[in-house]
Amino acid sequence: MKDIKLYPVGKIESPITTPLEAPRQGQEAHIQGKIIINPEYVKAIKGLRPGDYIWVLCWFHLAKRDVLEVYPRMARERGLTGVFTSRSHSRPNPIGLELVKILKIEKNTIWVEGLDAVNGTPVLDIKLFFPQIDCPRNR
Amino acid sequence: MKDIKLYPVGKIESPITTPLEAPRQGQEAHIQGKIIINPEYVKAIKGLRPGDYIWVLCWFHLAKRDVLEVYPRMARERGLTGVFTSRSHSRPNPIGLELVKILKIEKNTIWVEGLDAVNGTPVLDIKLFFPQIDCPRNR
Repeated sequence: MKDIKLYPVGKIESPITTPLEAPRQGQEAHIQGKIIINPEYVKAIKGLRPGDYIWVLCWFHLAKRDVLEVYPRMARERGLTGVFTSRSHSRPNPIGLELVKILKIEKNTIWVEGLDAVNGTPVLDIKLFFPQIDCPRNR
Repeated sequence: MKDIKLYPVGKIESPITTPLEAPRQGQEAHIQGKIIINPEYVKAIKGLRPGDYIWVLCWFHLAKRDVLEVYPRMARERGLTGVFTSRSHSRPNPIGLELVKILKIEKNTIWVEGLDAVNGTPVLDIKLFFPQIDCPRNR
């Protein structure tokens, strides 16, 4: 299979400027920021509303891709584990998965709460959250 | 910014052979299948256990990348919306996001329940599910 090529559809504007400042998955601080959608993809956000929760898939451009094992911060009792057992940014394909809440939308800018990515992080995709498929208790 | 290159870390083995058969997000039928991890990434699944819920990020290789608007099946009341307001496979970067439950793990094979992807779909990433960051009610 050939390599898979992705293109940023936008980028994150965030007060976080280095990975060390990141609150790890946005849960410790309700970091607010913006998603700026590239003009050619603005049609794709039609229908999103303030109050919606969305998955933001981003590209952790500063992450290492050759790390396979970590001590997962959110599952310390598991000890040294594979990166797939963690939410570490470092992994073979460092795609970030962040659940954020929409505060406001204006043209190609989405104000959100719950960010975990550094300023300038490329955005790959956005998906509306649906509890019936995204929470185990509802399945 | 340069193109982003991804590499499959494995693939899905599933009874679903065409997109039309797919149960849409795996919620209607508890489709069982396997994730076969490429040998060079087996270390990355260390620590995963039966009963764990994991996010499987896959590459919808059959999806269209030039579709920006759809009638979202799970949010019909929104009418014609942007693909980012949907879970349509077709989108600029067709990355799939599927929550599945691990049934069994043996060497580089993970048996899972809740699949929505066709047989042979490349897997890009796996992330352990954490309710404290992945469900709005816990944030």
